[in-house]
Order: sequence, then structure tokens, then C-alpha cells
Amino acid sequence: MRTLLTLSLLAGAVAVARADEGKPATSNVRRAEFPRVHADRRVTFLLKAPDAKSVKVQPGGAANGLGNGPFDMERADDGTWTVTTPPTVPGFHYYWLLVDGVAVNDPGSETYFGYGKPTSGVEVPEEGVDFYDDKDVPHGEVRALWYHSKVTGRPRRAFVYTPAGYDKNRVRRYPVLYLQHGAGEDERGWTTQGRANFILDNLIDAGRAAQMIVVNDNGYAERADTAPAPDRTGPPRFDFSGFEEVLLNDLVPKIDATYRTIADRDRRAFAGLSMGAMQALQIVPAHSETFGSLGVFSPPPIGSIDLSTFKGKFKLLWIGAGTAEERFLAAVRKMHEGFDREVIQHVVFESKGTAHEWLTWRRSLHDFVPRLFRD
Amino acid sequence: MRTLLTLSLLAGAVAVARADEGKPATSNVRRAEFPRVHADRRVTFLLKAPDAKSVKVQPGGAANGLGNGPFDMERADDGTWTVTTPPTVPGFHYYWLLVDGVAVNDPGSETYFGYGKPTSGVEVPEEGVDFYDDKDVPHGEVRALWYHSKVTGRPRRAFVYTPAGYDKNRVRRYPVLYLQHGAGEDERGWTTQGRANFILDNLIDAGRAAQMIVVNDNGYAERADTAPAPDRTGPPRFDFSGFEEVLLNDLVPKIDATYRTIADRDRRAFAGLSMGAMQALQIVPAHSETFGSLGVFSPPPIGSIDLSTFKGKFKLLWIGAGTAEERFLAAVRKMHEGFDREVIQHVVFESKGTAHEWLTWRRSLHDFVPRLFRD
Repeated sequence: MRTLLTLSLLAGAVAVARADEGKPATSNVRRAEFPRVHADRRVTFLLKAPDAKSVKVQPGGAANGLGNGPFDMERADDGTWTVTTPPTVPGFHYYWLLVDGVAVNDPGSETYFGYGKPTSGVEVPEEGVDFYDDKDVPHGEVRALWYHSKVTGRPRRAFVYTPAGYDKNRVRRYPVLYLQHGAGEDERGWTTQGRANFILDNLIDAGRAAQMIVVNDNGYAERADTAPAPDRTGPPRFDFSGFEEVLLNDLVPKIDATYRTIADRDRRAFAGLSMGAMQALQIVPAHSETFGSLGVFSPPPIGSIDLSTFKGKFKLLWIGAGTAEERFLAAVRKMHEGFDREVIQHVVFESKGTAHEWLTWRRSLHDFVPRLFRD
Repeated sequence: MRTLLTLSLLAGAVAVARADEGKPATSNVRRAEFPRVHADRRVTFLLKAPDAKSVKVQPGGAANGLGNGPFDMERADDGTWTVTTPPTVPGFHYYWLLVDGVAVNDPGSETYFGYGKPTSGVEVPEEGVDFYDDKDVPHGEVRALWYHSKVTGRPRRAFVYTPAGYDKNRVRRYPVLYLQHGAGEDERGWTTQGRANFILDNLIDAGRAAQMIVVNDNGYAERADTAPAPDRTGPPRFDFSGFEEVLLNDLVPKIDATYRTIADRDRRAFAGLSMGAMQALQIVPAHSETFGSLGVFSPPPIGSIDLSTFKGKFKLLWIGAGTAEERFLAAVRKMHEGFDREVIQHVVFESKGTAHEWLTWRRSLHDFVPRLFRD
């Protein structure tokens, strides 16, 4: 069922909104009235496009919490196109608009780097849930760190979360979590889509997590001597050896040289979502001298992994997925069975009702982080 | 004259590029082959849009260095639209695409916050000029600082550049430059469009500028007790009193409490571009107890200013504009005459051949910063 806006609502769209008209999404740009999120989690989209023949809303990816799109938008006499979705799943949902078949971003939305480019997104709040909100608690910083990679021969950028008080406390040293994004995303994802800094701020303020540094790097890296792929527009090839070398030879040494870290495998963790989970599984077990804890968020089903190689290596081994992302949940359950069979201690987490989307990963981080660096 | 791509070039677009086809702009997203910048500074744009009736490139604002648009794109048989501009002015140019009349961003471009929303941009290099490049020199950090504003009653975010070595040198204190963006932009502009961090890194590495902290805040601020404007989509009203209160009562105290600043008006400067220059002119002369130096980059002609109020107040008073932004240049020259008449020492800067665009402001910063905090 799709509920279309009435013209009377449209007429009031740019004026003061009534409560039943919902509120501008917090993921919007400043002053943008649309998309609007209603109390029952329906979402209304609007685009002014008098000369377009067809405008649709396309949710990104499979099982997107906005529902199965595309949603056809309906044209009003003034050239404004609009549609309201059925009630949606809470969380952050990627989407874009199809204007006469061309995929474009919604000018009302901030952009969020996904699908290999800036992408629109809409935040649907979960009632009573504030663990990822920007609350009035002491905030850490997120620092852009530019560094030269010997592996790629090029400059790179990482984002580094330092907890509140890092600068005041000039002696204390901190454990470090390396936390990676998914395919098509980049080092910005965990802050802008994931709100990882606020999740850490809130957990630390509540005394529920150790103070720690969190590092997000770009998961794509090509060695300096690698010829560009002949078709650079093709799908990403899941060869993580370039990133592995950057991580071990450039990034970890740079972080340990730059910040007051505890440069010890017991105080260093790696976690990643989706493609980042594949990186966790492929890179980390062979480098347990570097990483003592491991988080695997929504791993794609990537065939056989020799789970026995995880045995006795990790202080914390955490796997999880959303219940609405079936293939990823199946991969987690299969690993769970395998770890049990091998008698390898681990934590399994299931995010109820969420798919291969950022609320799954915010909840994953929120469950994972309090278990890290506790002894 | 508009040079259209030949089909043979189009066929090669996604394969390895030949030298005469230009290079992907550095402002593009990773892997995006278009827009491409040619050696003679022509720029080629491309969009796949088989079902569109009309696609154009629209440079943002007046006197945009891309030239006078919109540029009509031409459709090839495969549904790909393309156009090559005449040779362009160097620098960073905002633009967007018009797809059947709808203003949308180019999926090949990163987004840059301007015009009140994420906007496409293309970087055209200036031959032999590297003062804003990401060079292999010691880099400062750019830190996202979240803070609670008592003035607005809401959370805010500032970006804070700390110079290379800030963390290692645990005692040294630094002067601070508050550096503001223009209308429709936000606190990200000076890093993403302005490359201010690289400009500072390079100047400091060359021994040409004092080590300093640089703060970029959002220039928009509404007091907590201010009712929302009835039409929130209207043009920005140039009432800077909310921002003035945030700056003086929230931001400066927060920065002085958080970083190792020299909390002294002689070691504190304010500069801004366009709307930020208006803020500089309206706010700072009445607060010379707080700010000892002033930079006015491309001030809009805003009628009469009592220049005598600047007398004897500033260690550095700097005004500048590009020679291709006539009204702003006229405003600078008028101020220059006025300051001369009042016998007020000041520096005048003209950026040759650039308009109301970011290369004017990068050059302005590059001239301004070495003069700050020198005695």
C-alpha cells in the first residue's frame, strides 16, 4: 500500500509542518523539508521536476528497510513529484532517485559515500533508542590523518577517533580498534553512516566500554607496482593483499607512532562489516601477533574458511548479522556451528529485524565494543 | 566554441586513457573516469542517460571558471551524453547537471557542500602550482570537534586543524585562526574545497608560516529562543548575531579550553570568505579585545562601513579579491581607498584571473597566513 500525499499537505510543505506531516529526516541537509519521517515510520519523498516524465525512489541494495522499490512518485500540477512509503524499518537506508531513468541523488539529503559514490540516505529513528545519538556527554574527536603509503606510493587518509580526555591526559596510553567499512564505502562510513564516534562516546560516558582509539581506513588499496585494471569501472575484485600490506606495514606503524597507543596485540583489535568482515577473516587469523581480538560484522558467504586457524588466537572473537539479511545470517550461523565444533570460544550476535544496513552494524559495534580490552 | 567528443573517444572512455584524452579530475570519486581535464584545461563531462530528453552542464554561480553555461550535452547512440568545454580557468569549480531540467549531481564527482546542499565540483590544476597539493611533508590533522552550544541549545560541529607535531610537543601553545566559509557552504568547505590543511602544512614545512591552529565552524546559527522562520526554504538572512554569540560565547572558550592555544587577542585572528567576510566586517571590529588580526576575503559590496572603527585595532588587516569578480574587487578597492584615507595600515591582495571561487580563497589564505603571528 502506498499512501500518496494530498495536495493540501503539499501546499503546506514549505510552511510550518504539522505533527502528522512528520519531521525532516536528521540525515537531510540543513533547511531541507524532505524526506520527512512520520511517527509510524512511513517516509515521504518529494522532488520538484516539472519537465521529467518519470520520477521514482530507489532503495539501495536488497532488503533495504525502506521496502521493495522502486517507489513510483506521483506528479502534482505544479511539477512536484511525491510518494510516501509504507512503514519502514528503523535505521539508516541508502536510496537514490530515478529521474527519467537516471540514478541521481536527492537534493534534500546529505550525501553518504556508498555504492562507490556519494549516495542519498534517510535516517529513520527507532523509538526509545538513543545509543547512537549526539548526546550532551563528553565527546571524543574524529581526526583526519593524512599519511604517505609506501605500499601504494600515494597519499592516504584515515579517520582516528580519540576518546574524550585524550589530550588532557598526557601520559595515558590506549588500546586501538581498527574498524572497516563495506564494499563501495570508504573511511568516512563509520562516522557519517555508522555514528561510531557517538556510540563510543555514549558507551564510555556510561562506563560500559574501555577508553580506546578507533581507526577507520580506506579498505581499497593497490600496490604501487600494480597496473590499473583494464576496466576500472568493473566490480571490485576481492583481492585484499594490497590493503593487508597497507594495514600491517603502513597504517599500524603510523598509528602507533602518532598516538599514545598500547602497541600490543592484546590491546589491538580488528573489526569490519561485509567486505570489511571478509578482510577480517582473510587477513587477521594469519596475523594474530598483531591483532588480539576480532569482530566479524555481517560476513558475506565466502565459501570454506578453515576455522581451526582461529583456535587459541583471540581474546575476543565476535560474529554477528541482522535477522533480515538471510545469506549473511546463514554465514554467521554456519561459523557459529563450526566454532562450536572446534571448541573455539566466541560471541554470536543477531540484530533483530535489520538487514544488510547500518543499523545492524551500529548495533554490532554497540555489542562488540563493551567486550573489548576488559581485562 | 564547444568541442564535442568523437565517438572513437567515447568508445575508449572506460578503457585505459590516452594522454590527449586528459585525466580524471582529482575531485572525482575513486574509479570515475569523468569529468576529465585536458592539458589545455578543457573539461569533458559525460553522463549515461538513455531515456533523458536533455542533459546540460550548469556551472555554479556567476563568472564560474568553467565558462558561461549551461553547456548542452550531446547524445550518442548508446545513450551517453557528453560535452567538452572550451579551455577553463584553473581552480575548483562548482557545477551540476540538468537532466530534463532537474538539477542533479554528477555521479562521477565527489560532493562538496555549496549552494546549501551537496554539489558537484571539478578541480582544474594550475600548471606549476602546488601550494595546495597533498605533498609528502609532515601533515597536521583536521579534527571534528562536537560541542554543545548554549546559544543555540543544540549540538554543533567545528573542524580544527592542529599542525604537525602538535601531539608530540606537549607544552607548546599555539595561536589560532578562525576561518569561515561562504553562504550556502559549511564547516567542511575550507578543508574539502579550500584544502586549507595542505596550504598550512606546506607553508609551515617551508618555514613560511607560524605554526598555528585553524578553526572552521558553521557560519549559520540560530539562537535557542528564535522561532523558525516561517519559510525555512527562503534565502539566508544576513543576520549574524546568532553566529556572533556562538563565536564569542561558545566557540572561542571551547577552543581555548580544549587545545593548547595562546588565549590572547594578539594570537587570535579571524578571517572569512564572502559571507564569512561579511561576518568578519560586522563582528570583529567591535571585538578587537578578542581578535587581533583580520582577513577579509572577497567581501560582498554591503554598503557603508565605518572604516574608522578599524583604526589602531589590528596587528594585521588584510583585504583581497579576485580580478575576475568585479563587484567584490570593487568592494576591496573601495575599502583600500578608505583605509588609506583614514591612514589605517592594511594589506591588499588581488588574485589574478580568478572569480568568486575557491582558487581566489586558496590564494588569499596562502598570502594571508604567512603574515600572521610573526612578531
